[in-house]
Amino acid sequence: PLTDSFSELIWESILFSGISSATPTEEMNGAGNLMDFLDEPLPDVGTYEDFHTIDWLREKSRDTDRHRKITNRSKESIWEFVKSLLDAWSGWVVMLLIGLLSGTLAGVIDLAVDWMTDLKEGVCLSAFWYSHEQCCWTSNETTFADRDKCPQWQKWAELMTGHTESAGAYVLNYFLYVLWALFFSFLAVSLVRVFAPYACGSGIPEIKTILSGFIIRGYLGKWTLLIKTVTLVLAVSSGLSLGKEGPLVHVACCCGNLFCSLFSKYSKNEGKRREVLSAAAAAGVSVAFGAPIGGVLFSLEEVSYYFPLKTLWRSFFAALVAAFTLRSINPFGNNRLVLFYVEYHTPWYMAELVPFILLGVFGGLWGTLFIRGNIAWCRRRKTTQLGKYPVLEVIVVTGITAILAFPNPYTRRSTSELISELFNDCGALESSQLCDYINNPNMSRPEDDIPDRPAGPGVYMALWQLALALIFKIVITIFTFGMKIPSGLFIPSMMAYHHHDWIIFKNWCRPGADCVTPGLYAMVGAAACLGGVTRMTVSLVVIMFELTGGLEYIVPLMAAAVTSKWVADAFGKEGIYEAHIRLNGYPYLDQDEFTHRTLATDVMRPRRNEPPLSVLTQDSTTVEDVETLIKETDYNGFPVVVSRESERLIGFVQRRDLILAIKNARQKQDGVVSNSVVYFTEDAPQLPASNPQPLKLRRILNLSPFTVTDHTPMETVVDIFRKLGLRQCLVTRSGRLLGIITKKDVLRHMAQMMNQDPESIMFN
Amino acid sequence: PLTDSFSELIWESILFSGISSATPTEEMNGAGNLMDFLDEPLPDVGTYEDFHTIDWLREKSRDTDRHRKITNRSKESIWEFVKSLLDAWSGWVVMLLIGLLSGTLAGVIDLAVDWMTDLKEGVCLSAFWYSHEQCCWTSNETTFADRDKCPQWQKWAELMTGHTESAGAYVLNYFLYVLWALFFSFLAVSLVRVFAPYACGSGIPEIKTILSGFIIRGYLGKWTLLIKTVTLVLAVSSGLSLGKEGPLVHVACCCGNLFCSLFSKYSKNEGKRREVLSAAAAAGVSVAFGAPIGGVLFSLEEVSYYFPLKTLWRSFFAALVAAFTLRSINPFGNNRLVLFYVEYHTPWYMAELVPFILLGVFGGLWGTLFIRGNIAWCRRRKTTQLGKYPVLEVIVVTGITAILAFPNPYTRRSTSELISELFNDCGALESSQLCDYINNPNMSRPEDDIPDRPAGPGVYMALWQLALALIFKIVITIFTFGMKIPSGLFIPSMMAYHHHDWIIFKNWCRPGADCVTPGLYAMVGAAACLGGVTRMTVSLVVIMFELTGGLEYIVPLMAAAVTSKWVADAFGKEGIYEAHIRLNGYPYLDQDEFTHRTLATDVMRPRRNEPPLSVLTQDSTTVEDVETLIKETDYNGFPVVVSRESERLIGFVQRRDLILAIKNARQKQDGVVSNSVVYFTEDAPQLPASNPQPLKLRRILNLSPFTVTDHTPMETVVDIFRKLGLRQCLVTRSGRLLGIITKKDVLRHMAQMMNQDPESIMFN
Repeated sequence: PLTDSFSELIWESILFSGISSATPTEEMNGAGNLMDFLDEPLPDVGTYEDFHTIDWLREKSRDTDRHRKITNRSKESIWEFVKSLLDAWSGWVVMLLIGLLSGTLAGVIDLAVDWMTDLKEGVCLSAFWYSHEQCCWTSNETTFADRDKCPQWQKWAELMTGHTESAGAYVLNYFLYVLWALFFSFLAVSLVRVFAPYACGSGIPEIKTILSGFIIRGYLGKWTLLIKTVTLVLAVSSGLSLGKEGPLVHVACCCGNLFCSLFSKYSKNEGKRREVLSAAAAAGVSVAFGAPIGGVLFSLEEVSYYFPLKTLWRSFFAALVAAFTLRSINPFGNNRLVLFYVEYHTPWYMAELVPFILLGVFGGLWGTLFIRGNIAWCRRRKTTQLGKYPVLEVIVVTGITAILAFPNPYTRRSTSELISELFNDCGALESSQLCDYINNPNMSRPEDDIPDRPAGPGVYMALWQLALALIFKIVITIFTFGMKIPSGLFIPSMMAYHHHDWIIFKNWCRPGADCVTPGLYAMVGAAACLGGVTRMTVSLVVIMFELTGGLEYIVPLMAAAVTSKWVADAFGKEGIYEAHIRLNGYPYLDQDEFTHRTLATDVMRPRRNEPPLSVLTQDSTTVEDVETLIKETDYNGFPVVVSRESERLIGFVQRRDLILAIKNARQKQDGVVSNSVVYFTEDAPQLPASNPQPLKLRRILNLSPFTVTDHTPMETVVDIFRKLGLRQCLVTRSGRLLGIITKKDVLRHMAQMMNQDPESIMFN
Repeated sequence: PLTDSFSELIWESILFSGISSATPTEEMNGAGNLMDFLDEPLPDVGTYEDFHTIDWLREKSRDTDRHRKITNRSKESIWEFVKSLLDAWSGWVVMLLIGLLSGTLAGVIDLAVDWMTDLKEGVCLSAFWYSHEQCCWTSNETTFADRDKCPQWQKWAELMTGHTESAGAYVLNYFLYVLWALFFSFLAVSLVRVFAPYACGSGIPEIKTILSGFIIRGYLGKWTLLIKTVTLVLAVSSGLSLGKEGPLVHVACCCGNLFCSLFSKYSKNEGKRREVLSAAAAAGVSVAFGAPIGGVLFSLEEVSYYFPLKTLWRSFFAALVAAFTLRSINPFGNNRLVLFYVEYHTPWYMAELVPFILLGVFGGLWGTLFIRGNIAWCRRRKTTQLGKYPVLEVIVVTGITAILAFPNPYTRRSTSELISELFNDCGALESSQLCDYINNPNMSRPEDDIPDRPAGPGVYMALWQLALALIFKIVITIFTFGMKIPSGLFIPSMMAYHHHDWIIFKNWCRPGADCVTPGLYAMVGAAACLGGVTRMTVSLVVIMFELTGGLEYIVPLMAAAVTSKWVADAFGKEGIYEAHIRLNGYPYLDQDEFTHRTLATDVMRPRRNEPPLSVLTQDSTTVEDVETLIKETDYNGFPVVVSRESERLIGFVQRRDLILAIKNARQKQDGVVSNSVVYFTEDAPQLPASNPQPLKLRRILNLSPFTVTDHTPMETVVDIFRKLGLRQCLVTRSGRLLGIITKKDVLRHMAQMMNQDPESIMFN
């Protein structure tokens, strides 16, 4: 949707130049005369076009101005003082609301997913809205050991035919399982297509782009919120290999955007709005894992672009509120904050670092494989016929997933159930097959000595099934992520590796000692795989640390995460989110170092063989000239120079302001005709009455455009664009205007330097 | 030590301009001819004068350049490739070393403090190097209940006179206690004065300033490290009301600086060095509290200025290594990472939020009081005779502290012992007076029902003593912090509030339920007081959370920390560290928003009535002119313009480079005399042989000086200075050079806008 080369120069502009150029006294005296009509509020002042980049400096300046006005006014009356207090508190109110709503939504989603996942297998007779676990908990006939079996819960085949164990019943269950899965995913993909196309995917690449200052209208809207919530439940319940973590971040950001609209402080300032969205992202991760600190660090490390300390503090507040809201809903029934609460009591040994690091290597390799495979598949989807049948694609993938998943008990159940089983230590009362050790009757306290017992056949069986599940998940996830359906990556990635090797260690460690915690291996493997895919580091370790609740296991997690990141980085620097950002061509300026030795002069427009830069002069252009220029070019702004000969820059004027100002002047100001000279100087000369009335436009001129010299190294220019959030920058040499560099030019140049074809990857 | 107005324009400069202005081809062809001698490495290239500000952009640019060179060279041979790998890994090696050394030092300090604190009371007969606890642990005659009493440990009076309980013995113990305290503190202050004056104080204000880009040579040197470690032990052991947390951060930063010197990557680049120091600060907090995540957040929130993601990750690594090194030394004898390990099992109730918030209000008030009182006292110390007798001051304060502290058991012992007693829940085996509840013989399981029992006289006694201890600590800490002795604030602040009010709740809550955890109140009170004093938020809560190891109590902690910050902020925005930075006049540009409506033209030099800016012209200045200018002014750099008439800026040249270049040219280049014309242009014209040889100086010219227009709002200028870490910025209007703004000008202007006298507070 971006038009052309200078499209980064955003069309709209509130009269930033007017604000910044007027000294306080001028402002107070109301210097305006001819131009007073520009002071009237214009309908879409301060908004940006869709798919344009915001100017952070301008947004910040506008907010400071707003704040200044409120502070000045607050001294006038008590009511204004109260209003200023309310304004100061509105940030906290928004955080509170975001926390409450995203916590609630996460709770509802968890409950619904639980119920619908079980619905694929059977139904609760006492109350159909109960999930399997709830059904059996409420039943009186259930003992703790058999807590999964109760008469109220009936599988479909049992309900329909009365048989439970026959081959026919198995086939019927199988068939219905697949059918439900297809139904759910069809519903999800249809809802997304019809009501909210932005509700598909993980959302994190887009949110990263939005937070870096891009506008994608509707991406965080109410409809997206509603549809994403509903379809997320459907998609996860359908058994597709996707998690709800990324989408929960998207949902939380939608909540943030929703509550922004309640306060003009946030709704009218794109910069401030992004501060709220950063905090909302933290709340999203917080509810996804029950890890508030990890959520804040995730937002800081992975998603956010501009993250001042104030936002850090507010994010933490929002994340905590969200986590506690979720806990009070208590969807997991364990009164815990976290999804996979584990409590290990056995220490780990230094020698175990070797398998942990191997897990890290595996995670890194898997991350690379996944990113390459997934990006290749997504590119094929974009460029071939495949992309035209998204519904069919979802149906096919769901069908394959369901058909392959049902026979294996580890893939049949929902991924989060599987992970919590894998993470858990074997206890005496554990019914999982993974804990099927042979009972040694000679032992006095069997529950303490489980790891000493030889593994029973169930364990070997389980290992085979897990290995199959692993391979299956790896392959299917590559095809699933990026489909037109809400999909997250965290959980599938966490899935990936389980304690294949602990069986080796069993023989190795001395008898009588609790020496290996299988759950720990699962957790370390999960961290390694997630690290390989997303390249998160601190936030990943902190999330895992919050899950386990102890500093004890931080070293294994860290070792695996570091190794995984290094291994994956050796094959390619980009994480999955960056890769998707690049695939979609979003204008995202990442934090990597730019190390090439090019200068501003190599990047600026116009190039050597191009026509000269379109400029305006301060006192010799007529209204007609300006109108012609506007008609013939589609640049979003024009530099203003003293004269064409001297080329000395005096300011920058936005296209939209020019159009508005001329239109208004022609309507309201007598004597302004095509022949009138446009003056950007402070005073227009007194002209004889026979000449047409001059048009003074200094107030729409930005008198402080950002400039660099042509000899400035590009690494500095990139740094300036990144840190100051610029949209464009003018290039001068000894005070003469030479050219212009836009954010898009910078991105194009960076792509070129990385030997990528700049045009093919941008904004398509 | 700062000289004059333009001292921000740092004297030295490596040939930044040369690096940045040469295009790649020029560089490869070796364009130098006359100026080749400048390519020779100069002895102190790239270093800054003491008490000057670094240029972040330049440091970054230099590092990129170094990196580029290594990357290019790594393709040449295997040896170069290995070297490039080593270079890439050096950051991690430095982190590892910092973690190991700072963890070890923290462990040694803990052990030494333990021993010397006990030495004030008595001595272990079996081995004099044992502390009280170690002495009794190694004794076989000790039972668990009487673990504080054993024959091997003798108080001084007992050892000398044989009496234990008489009044004479008490007086003798009292006297020796005070004497030891005086001895320790005298030793500490003398060592600091003689060997390392920078070893005094907390160090955090200075480290904040250093990290923001200021140079204080020797502040992080080897001597400071050694003396600070020794005197910290002495100061804490002397019983002064000071903690070891701030100084531990300083010690860790000294370690960081030490290891930087091992790698030229860090030792030769002030920007990179600061990344290491940020990580070291995290390691310092990590060992101070055993809270690695809290340490990283502390570094991020409170100390660091430039904190890229790479540093986040490395800080985390350093903090973890440090914490685990400390744990393996195990100074607390409990195999825990943390200083005050607590484990509460009782939940808290919503109604308890009221006292928690009250604690927050108290903490905020105390913080304000403390900052005001301490700053007033420190200012008096600076301005009156008081400051001339630092040794006497320390002796007097130590004497008063020791005399007042001895009679009260809660002030007699070391502060960290006291805190761990306060934080702890009462158990059945607890010998503390605070747990002196009347034993009810009817109860079957007394240990579970302690909170139900009525309080015994010991509890009331303890409360009185605690109240006295509180008042005493509040007053004495105001006078202690800022003395010429290593002193930290954390622990004294944490001290401040104890469960005065829980006795009320005891009656209020229904019998039979564990309803109030006194230790929790102590902890929340500590968080509130620390929050009020330092204005930390997230890092404070996370540190406390890591101490308790459970998410359960995060809401009380957060409520108290937020309230405390709000209350304290209402009285003044500055935390104690910012207040001390301002008191000492360090050039620290803080992160607060600048909200005034001034423009660059209001701030730039020269002012209206001042002489014009000293500039050089590109082709009409003689060597003699330049030498006169250098002699007559002390500016650290000069803009170069096309001609005095056009005033069009072409670059900026450093004073030091000019001096060096002219000196070299006069020595090595024939025909360069006072009459020679200095050329900054690309080519010097061919002059007749009769004219003196021209001097070409383009290579020392920075062709990309940073410019803003005179109409740029100061809020934007401040933002640019802060985000890009500039030292100076040139001001232009329509391409003409108007003036210059230095970092010092910005700071002076900001002080002026806050109605402070700019000269009185700066750099004194």
